[in-house]
Order: sequence, then structure tokens, then C-alpha cells
Amino acid sequence: MSRYWSDFVHKLVPYVPGEQPKIPNLVKLNTNENPYPPSPRAIAAMQAELGASLRRYPDPTSGALVDAVAAHFGVPRECVFVGNGSDEVLAHVFLGLFRHAEPILFPDITYSFYPVYCGLYGIDYTAVPLDESFAIRVDEYLRPNGGIIFPNPNAPTGVPLPLDDIERLVSRNVDSVVVVDEAYVDFGADSAVALTQKYPNLLVTQTLSKSRSLAGLRVGYAIGHPALIEALVRIKDSFNSYPLDRLAIVGAAAAMADGDYFAQTCRAVVDSRTALVAELQALGFSVLPSAANFVFARHASCDGAELAQALREKAVLVRHFRSPARVAPYLRVTIGLPEENAALIAALRAILA
Amino acid sequence: MSRYWSDFVHKLVPYVPGEQPKIPNLVKLNTNENPYPPSPRAIAAMQAELGASLRRYPDPTSGALVDAVAAHFGVPRECVFVGNGSDEVLAHVFLGLFRHAEPILFPDITYSFYPVYCGLYGIDYTAVPLDESFAIRVDEYLRPNGGIIFPNPNAPTGVPLPLDDIERLVSRNVDSVVVVDEAYVDFGADSAVALTQKYPNLLVTQTLSKSRSLAGLRVGYAIGHPALIEALVRIKDSFNSYPLDRLAIVGAAAAMADGDYFAQTCRAVVDSRTALVAELQALGFSVLPSAANFVFARHASCDGAELAQALREKAVLVRHFRSPARVAPYLRVTIGLPEENAALIAALRAILA
Repeated sequence: MSRYWSDFVHKLVPYVPGEQPKIPNLVKLNTNENPYPPSPRAIAAMQAELGASLRRYPDPTSGALVDAVAAHFGVPRECVFVGNGSDEVLAHVFLGLFRHAEPILFPDITYSFYPVYCGLYGIDYTAVPLDESFAIRVDEYLRPNGGIIFPNPNAPTGVPLPLDDIERLVSRNVDSVVVVDEAYVDFGADSAVALTQKYPNLLVTQTLSKSRSLAGLRVGYAIGHPALIEALVRIKDSFNSYPLDRLAIVGAAAAMADGDYFAQTCRAVVDSRTALVAELQALGFSVLPSAANFVFARHASCDGAELAQALREKAVLVRHFRSPARVAPYLRVTIGLPEENAALIAALRAILA
Repeated sequence: MSRYWSDFVHKLVPYVPGEQPKIPNLVKLNTNENPYPPSPRAIAAMQAELGASLRRYPDPTSGALVDAVAAHFGVPRECVFVGNGSDEVLAHVFLGLFRHAEPILFPDITYSFYPVYCGLYGIDYTAVPLDESFAIRVDEYLRPNGGIIFPNPNAPTGVPLPLDDIERLVSRNVDSVVVVDEAYVDFGADSAVALTQKYPNLLVTQTLSKSRSLAGLRVGYAIGHPALIEALVRIKDSFNSYPLDRLAIVGAAAAMADGDYFAQTCRAVVDSRTALVAELQALGFSVLPSAANFVFARHASCDGAELAQALREKAVLVRHFRSPARVAPYLRVTIGLPEENAALIAALRAILA
């Protein structure tokens, strides 16, 4: 605490990311990274840029990346905004599109960064309870609001919302912006990107950190009506003219263009998830239906915090959330390589024996 | 304009960075980039990181870079904050340390991003006139304020403020934070970093974009009392957990550690500046005393805007600011390679003939 701080900083409760420990031989299944390396074409593109050109500022519009994203989705480039990770994109969304008289709405169990952005920018929110199967109740979002945001599939549950439900929610909220945070969509949920060309109040965000294996490069984007994109550009140009460095722009653009590698690695993760779910169920876990690169699972008799700690002692890291109370029995387990998933199952088998 | 925007976005006037045109054989002296490439050790460090590890999130604390900055300056690591370019660092400073009841103070002629941050975060400011020689009048900053910020040397003038004056300004403003933006300090001004260990209200920001030749990598930092740093960390952790990518962390850390290359390239720029100033004066320019990697010069008889346009037609790009009126006669010219400076002089000679 310091008298030099702006007042709200004293009350600010920052987001806590998953651990990035430097323990050798750790089976790291706690931060939803992709088990496969980035596209070789992305690495090659960065290799070509790594040199004297770094003395120059990047293109402030990240034009090459905007074009690559637009081409991938078949949308006009005016519908694309890129940023330094989808967390930065989301921060600009909260500041530029969510500061209205009414509170914004998001699920009570969801990405825990949303209430943090609200604290940062002085935005009111209402957390809307999921139903007993951890699904979003669309009808609960049909009320006055200053904006709506939810991940699809949801985090940390992995549960997807059908596209029909998303369209109903968007079409019944024409007075506010609906943001679908599709960080994990490529692992089995239906993307709402095509709907952005129909509904001017829909914004979809995605990241290269999960399905493009580039968490270490920090690139995310948003797709929506040009008027929504313009608000984000105004915020960005009033915050940092060059949020993406030269290496990130070329690497991310090349990753977006490498559709074959993307499809192949996503499929491998989904296949591993199917196998892992069966093994977890055989060990007495109930697993929520996941369309993500992680599963959310609780054991019939073992406490979530205790299991996470016991796994840690066996050098297997998974993520456990103490609150809200309803998720405390669960573990969130990232899908790893087949041998990492096998190590997890072996460790659990030893713990539960 | 859109009804979906947060209200303040309608009035927001973003910063306009210098052009980054893609014209071959351009003599580009408009955005104060370093004419020399980055340290070979920085390139080598990024080379070693470029590969499969990019699938992993970076260290959210950028610990290796914080350590390198702390070691370079001989300050505790708790006194160091790093960000995605010093523009991002400054944005967090405005939000976390400058939002108080009184307006903040900065010079009327200065880095034009400062009023933009105020617009972004709803901060009042008073622009304090420079004196007739474009120097900061310290006495004008001894009044109630919510914070003070100025570049040293100032931008776009290049004029430095002596360290004694800075200490007087800081010591007479113990109730507010004084930020010295040292983007250009390594080209001839005296750094206030050592004073941060004496005054808890002093924060110094620097960037790797100029003296470290890494504008394309987006890395900046702040040095100050741990309580000031904690405010910035809280903001950062409420905005984007991982603002620096894995390549930027290792590349910037290596650049900070390469003192010899840094000293050698800074010296070369300063020597070129001395030569360029003499040539500009011989052509009828008056040049403000510069401690930066650029000069601010006006011609005795030629208009600034016209000169900038005439140079552009000869494929030489310099920066011209239309406002405030007092700077409109001037050109801001980045110090280039000796042959680039010679091309500028040749072009001016032809224009003025």
C-alpha cells in the first residue's frame, strides 16, 4: 500500500496465472499448453526475421497478421483486431466496449480474469449461475446488461455451448456486445466466427496459445463488425502503438497459414483426450464433457486439493481452483503427450491404491 | 461511432506513430530508430530460444530480464518493472500512479502520447510551458499536482535537463510521483536512476528501442521504489499475465548484459550527431542542443512542413509536427548511419539551392 497509488489499486485483486515452475522432468499439465511444438513454418518465418531488422519498429497495424487471420476465416480485414495475447485483446474489450451503465454478465464459473478486468476498469458485473450440469442457461442472459462474455467451451469446465444457443443469446441482446471467448474452440466446439458477419453486436476472440502451440509468443485476435474493431483499434492506439513485435507478427501469420499442421495437432490432442477420459473414468473419476484441450474431473472419494498436492509430489502438475466451492472437488488436467497422460494415470493409480 | 462503444471512446484521440512505409531505398530518419543492428549476443540468445519451447507460456515475471536490468544499474530486483515497450510501461504508470484529484503536469512541448494516456484513463492534466530556449522551468512544477512526467532529454526537442534540476523537482514534490522518461538518455543526458534509491517518489522509465537497437522487439522498463513497482505489477497482473514473449525476455536480457556493444554504438551515434549538427548549421539551420539520437532543427527561411515534404520526394523521411505552433517550423531528424546523414545533407542542399 502506498499513498502514491491511484485509489483503485489498493482494492485491485490481480489474476493469478498457473505456475511456470522450473523443475526438470516435470509432467506439466496445469496451464493448457499444447503438447506439440509450433508449426515448422512459424519457426522458419521467425528465423528469417531474426536479425538486423529488429532495430526497426514493427508495422503498428500488424498488417501481415491481420491479413493471415482474415484469410483463414474468410472475413474482411476490417473485421480483425490483433493483440499481445488474447488477454490483452480482452482487456481492450472490457475498457472499450463494456463500460456502460448496466452491469456486464458472465457465468459464475468461468475464466477468472473477467472479474479482474472489471476491477481494473471500474465495471460492474453480475455472475450468472451455471445450471447443475455446468451448462450456460441462455435464458438468464436475456435481461438488461452492459455486455456479455463467456468462453466457449467454458473454462475451467471445458463444457461447450451449442451454436444455436449462442445465436439465440446474441440475437436477443441487440443492445449490447456479446463476446464469445473461443480460446479452446479448436478442440471440438463450434466457432461463432461466421455469425460475426450477421450480427453487429457479436465479437469472437481467439488465441494462438492453445491450438497453434504458441503460448510463448503472445498473440491473440478478435473478429467482429468493423465498428467493434474500430473501438479496439482506438484503445490500442491510445495504449501502445506497437503491441506485437516483429517476430510475433511473422511467426503468428505463418502459423495461421499452416492449416494442415493445425488440423493434425488438434486431432492428436482430441484423440488423446478421448483416451484419457476413459482411463480417468476407470479410476473412479467423473469427467465433464470437454470440447477443450483439458478435462475437468472429480474423483468419487478423493478431495481435489489433496489429489493435486499428491500429484505434485509425484512431479505431475495439474491445476486446482479452491473457489467457488462447487469447483473445489475438481482437477483441471491439460491433455499432454500420450506418455505424459500415461504418467498422470500411473501417478493417480499409485495415489488411489 | 457506435452505440456499442464505452462513452469515452467517442472522444478518444489516439497517438499517431511515425510512418513505417515499405518504400525501398528510403533514408528513414523519422522514428528515432538506431542505425546499428542489435547486439549479436541478443540475436544469439533469441536464436537459442527459437523452437519447441514457444509452445510454453513465458515466465510471467520475466525474471531473467528483471535480473539483467537490476544488474546493469546495480539496483535491487524489487526496484525493476518490465513491459512490452516503454509505451506499455507508461500506460500502466498513468493508470496506477497518476489517477488522483489534482491534474498531472507535463511540458507543453513533449512526447505527444502523454495527453493520449490521460484521455484513455480519464486523468486531468496541465501542460506547463517550456521557456523560450525550450527548457523545462522547474519552478513551474512546484505546485499541487497528481503527478509529474517529462522526458529527459525532452522529445521532440532533444534538450536535456541537468540532474540538479531533476533532483530539486523531485525533492520538492514529495507528495506525488515524478516520472522521468529516459527513452533517449543514453545519447548524452544524465540518468536519474541513482536518485531512485534516495527518493521514493521518483520513477525512471527506459526503453530498449533506441540505445539497444531493439525497437522491433518491444521491451521497456521502469526503475523506482518497490512500492511504486508493486502498483505497476498489480496493474500488469490485472491486464495481461505475460506481456513479454519468450524471445523478447531472453533477447532483451542479453542486450542489457552486452555493455561493450552498447557503449560502442551509442558513441558512434553521438559522433555522427556532432558532425550532422555542424553540417545543418552550415546549411542555415538552427539546431537545439541535443542529448538524444535525433536533432530538432529549423531553417532560417524554409517552412518545416514544406521541407519535410520536399525531403520525402527525395526519399528521405524525417518527422514534422504541425502543432503546437511553436514546433511547426522544426524538423525532427533521427541520427542515421554516416551515409544516411550524408544523403540527408545532399537532399537538403539540393532543395535549398
